[in-house]
Order: sequence, then structure tokens, then C-alpha cells
Amino acid sequence: MPPRNPYPRSHDFGDGCIDLSHGSGGRATTRLVEALFVSAFDNPLLDQRNDQAQFPVAPGRMVMTTDAYVISPLFFPGGDIGSLAVHGTINDVAMAGARPLYLSAAFILEEGLPLADLNRIVQSMAQASRNAGVPVVTGDTKVVERGKCDGVFITTAGIGRIPDGVTISGEQARPGDAVLLSGTLGDHGITIMSARAGISFATSLQSDSAALHTLVAGMVAAVPAIHCLRDPTRGGLAATLNELAQQSEVGIVLEQDHIPIHPEVSGACELLGLDPLNIANEGKLIAICAETDAERLLAAMHAHPLGRKAAIIGRVIADPHRFVQMKTSFGGKRMVDWLNGDPLPRIC
Amino acid sequence: MPPRNPYPRSHDFGDGCIDLSHGSGGRATTRLVEALFVSAFDNPLLDQRNDQAQFPVAPGRMVMTTDAYVISPLFFPGGDIGSLAVHGTINDVAMAGARPLYLSAAFILEEGLPLADLNRIVQSMAQASRNAGVPVVTGDTKVVERGKCDGVFITTAGIGRIPDGVTISGEQARPGDAVLLSGTLGDHGITIMSARAGISFATSLQSDSAALHTLVAGMVAAVPAIHCLRDPTRGGLAATLNELAQQSEVGIVLEQDHIPIHPEVSGACELLGLDPLNIANEGKLIAICAETDAERLLAAMHAHPLGRKAAIIGRVIADPHRFVQMKTSFGGKRMVDWLNGDPLPRIC
Repeated sequence: MPPRNPYPRSHDFGDGCIDLSHGSGGRATTRLVEALFVSAFDNPLLDQRNDQAQFPVAPGRMVMTTDAYVISPLFFPGGDIGSLAVHGTINDVAMAGARPLYLSAAFILEEGLPLADLNRIVQSMAQASRNAGVPVVTGDTKVVERGKCDGVFITTAGIGRIPDGVTISGEQARPGDAVLLSGTLGDHGITIMSARAGISFATSLQSDSAALHTLVAGMVAAVPAIHCLRDPTRGGLAATLNELAQQSEVGIVLEQDHIPIHPEVSGACELLGLDPLNIANEGKLIAICAETDAERLLAAMHAHPLGRKAAIIGRVIADPHRFVQMKTSFGGKRMVDWLNGDPLPRIC
Repeated sequence: MPPRNPYPRSHDFGDGCIDLSHGSGGRATTRLVEALFVSAFDNPLLDQRNDQAQFPVAPGRMVMTTDAYVISPLFFPGGDIGSLAVHGTINDVAMAGARPLYLSAAFILEEGLPLADLNRIVQSMAQASRNAGVPVVTGDTKVVERGKCDGVFITTAGIGRIPDGVTISGEQARPGDAVLLSGTLGDHGITIMSARAGISFATSLQSDSAALHTLVAGMVAAVPAIHCLRDPTRGGLAATLNELAQQSEVGIVLEQDHIPIHPEVSGACELLGLDPLNIANEGKLIAICAETDAERLLAAMHAHPLGRKAAIIGRVIADPHRFVQMKTSFGGKRMVDWLNGDPLPRIC
């Protein structure tokens, strides 16, 4: 008698839905994991089928990071929660100057979630992971009752390896340093706003969701002594620069005219009374480096498709108040503050 | 003029609640992270305050794992979602025979969650992490609207290091091997059932939630050639042994009389028509090793407080059907199958 097949590919990805048995740890869980996750993320480490992935490491410095993704809607122009969960965590690894090695992925699924939606998300996630060359090597799936989550939440963690000679951290900005931005501000946030019911002012705009690690690799190769790197996600450029100013105990002065912003984003922000500096990005980075390195770093950014619109947008100054300020196009100067409250919940 | 304090400890942990601004990435997020998470998890890596933790590693083999925790209720006899999220992920690292090094923690919070509850969970998590000697080095916080999650979900990831000479994996069970269990079955699952509204049949019982890595360290030191280790969480012993039988392409025969079960768990299971072999555990492990190593491994387990009731509960056999069976107390034999459906959603 041949061995029975414990994992029939029996899921109906057209009409089926997630039910609580998919979270039981029993046969239904195993079938879902095999039919959907293992086959989509297909790689030898995940294929070990243990509750953890095992891999060799060389000596050196590593990084670890995690982010939970709760974005609404799940699908949006330029991406979905799956690709975002891959890009976002790769980027947090890369912001240490590190090369991302492996990702983990934990799914919280709502009872009733169409399997077709889950399949689309997982396929997109697997594609983003393959494109980036960073495999998802271990994971987990939980199911909660209808009304106890919102379709699907995904938490990814990532580990990576820092090249020798690179030490990038948020407290290293020094007066005189240059502040560089890799591209246009606000594309992700404004796209999500427009994707939400009833707002459709910016139809051609797409989320900038992208994995920045190859851009960072080029930057680090050109200027190993980059002081700070950070991606201005939730809270936008304003929050990220204020964080860096606090950590480094410095001030920052931006030049409004130097900050690249897509015209559709400017237009939408004017319409809605929002400041593009507070809007979330998912494929942009800020770099701070010595003034003498700035042009070389800018050239390395321009050489990468994700850095073509990079610009030097400001300078670090000595300031005991740690203020972030901006010289406006009209010749004035204004404070760039953290936002109080949340203009757009669940942006990532 | 002195620098302003950007992080006043202004949260009212007595009467305050989570609101959407805590997830904005702006000042409220930073304040919450500083006042609650950074101070509770207090360690030099988290204190780097970057979006990732950086640390040196020695050459060798590492593991990575993740789990999402969605347990209901959040607080239960013997633990809460915070301590569980630390123990569970440490255990998944340890089941490779590895020494856990670092944890990440991502929180999804529901608008309206009392800060007092969150504080209690985070303090418990920090205590579990300190007791285990495995720091939480990086994290993330998201907030979703009221009714879009259930209080709090926590996803932890963990990395660890495998000692030289240890290779533990689910496909290594061989006919003739002994199957060992570290203690009583079903304590966690029955405790959660009793903690849920309206059921209170087992008042003295506690969850067995515990970090098993020091038990594993002792076992690996005594028998480096352990074949398989796995913790029987969701789905219980039955699911875990069926997984191992599938991976190793073997059968398993258990001895019912050798399986330690707390009398209150037996009683509750009889009352509810449940099989203790399907009930979740959060502080137990199964080990499979060569018969010649079994007594030495058992002695190492008995020497640790979490393995005092350890027993050899069965044998691996050659079986092309990969069946898990049990010799019952009455002299018969029955199949031990995966459960279909979910007797108890959100057990972990």
C-alpha cells in the first residue's frame, strides 16, 4: 500500500475562505501552509519544515529588525500588504548599511478572508522576496474570529549582515553634514489616501514601495563612512529628521526648493491641507554624511534606478534645541515639527 | 537654554487609553515607545534607538523563527500574552538545540486598549525576557481602529546559535528510537478554557508557559546526538507527533500509561469530551533519540525543574503509513490522529 498523501492540494483558492480550523495547528493548518506558503516562498531553508530555519553565518556584525503591517486597503496602486511587508523590513535592515539575508513572516488572518485574496497577497510577497533576493525562511499563521482583525495583518522580521568598515547609526549626524534624500516625497501616503473609498484625486500616482538594499549597497560602496541612513515612513520626512536631530543632538536646516515632490502629490496636499513632509514613504531614504562626501554619495544614488531623483536637501547645524527648520521657497524659514495626531491611520 | 525634553513621561498608565496617534509615527508614538517599551525592555541594543539592532556574531550555525500571538483572554493563570510571546519564540529557537540570543517584538494595538493593560503585558514580557536572559532588542508598534483587532496581538521573532556538533531536525526519527516527553500534557489548553467566560472547572490549574532553553541546553550537553525536538503547542502531542512521523517517514507507537497528565486535566477532558493529546502546551517538549541514549537523556531532563516529570512515552517504528498509534491502558491500540477543526481557537 502506498503512503497516504497527508497534504492534498485541496484548497479552493477561487471560492474558499479562511476558517478557524486553518489556525488550529492541525491538518487544515498544515494543508494551508503547504499548499500556499511553502509552495509560494519555495526555498531550501523554509523546506526544512521545522519551527525554525537553520543556516550558517560568517563572523562579523549582524542586524535584526521587525515591523507589523496593518495597511488598509490591502491592495493599492503599486503594491499590496504582502510586497510592503517584504520591502519595509528589507529597508529597515538596509538602513544599517547591511545586506539583508533572511526574512520571517507571521500572518494573522481573519475568519472569512477569501483564500483568493490571501493567495494574491502571498504570491506578491513571494515575488517581492525573489526580486530582492531575500528569502522568507520561516513563518507562522494564526486565525482569529470574524471581526477580530481586518482581513490580514503581516509581521515580518529580518536579519542582515553589516559590511566591514561600515558603522551607520542615528546619533552620528555632525554640524556641517549634508542631508540627502533619494527621491520624491509622499507618493505612498497620497496613493493610499486616494485608494481609500471616496477619494480619487491622483489616479496616475503609485506607491513608491520598493526594496532599497541594492541602492544602499551602491551608496556604502561609494562612501563607507555614511553617518546616518533612515527611511522616512510613518510620520514622513519631518518625523524622521526630528528623530535624527534628537539622537544626534543637532539641528537640521532644509532647503524647500531642493526637496523633490511629485506635482500630483503637491496638488493633493494643497487640496487636503497636508504637508508633504508629514506624508509616509515606502521606497525612499535619507542619508547624512560629511560635506566632503556628499557629491560622491549623490552620484552613487543617481546611478541607481531608485535614486535617480536624489538631491542634497539640507545641512546639519549645531543647535541645542535640536530644531528641524526649512528655508521656504519664498525666502522665509519655518519649523518642521513632528505631527501631533494621525492624519492617516494604517498607512503601513 | 537647556535642550527641551522631547520625551516627557506623560502617559497616564492608570486611566489612559491607546488612541490612533500612538500609531502615527509622530511624537505620540515616540513618547509611548520611550515611556513604555524602551524603559521596560531596557538593554543596550534596544537603546541604540535605530530601526534595527546591531550586534556581533561568531561564525557557526544560527536559527531564526517567528510566531504571532493572538491568545484570548490576554491574561490567564500562569501568564499572559506578553510572557507567552517571549516563551513561545524562545522555545522555537531552542527546539533546534540552539541557544536563544535575541528577540524582536511587534505590537498591534487596538484603539481604546487601556494603557494599564498594555503596561502590565509589557512588564510581564520584560520580566520573562530578563528571567530567560534573552533581550528584546528591536520592535514596532501599530495601532488599528476600535474593532479591527482584539486588544493586542504580539509577534515575536527570535534568533539563536546552534552549538557545534548538534544537528536536530524533524526528519531524523529512526525506527527503534525512543520518544520522550518533558512533563504533563494539556495544562495550558485546559487553563485557557477555564479562564474563558463561563467555564471554571479547574481552578488550581495554571498554564505551563515557560522558556525551555535551559532544559534543552542540559539535554544537548548530555546527548548531543538528539534526533528531534519539538514543542507540542497548538494541536497538542497528536499534531506534533504526526508532523514528525510525516517528516521522518516513520510510525510512532505511544504507551498511554507512560504519558504524564495532571488529574485536573484528565478530569476536564473527560467532562468536555476532549483528548488531552490534542490539547495545547506551552512549556513542554518532545525529544526523539536513539534507544541507547534514552536513559541518559531522561536523566538530564529529570535534573531540570521543567523536566522533573519527564518520561519515555513511546517508540519510533518502521511504518510506510506513518501512523501514530497508542497502546491504551486497557491493552488495546488506537490511532492518534490530527484533529480536524479547532476545539479551542486562539490558544496562543
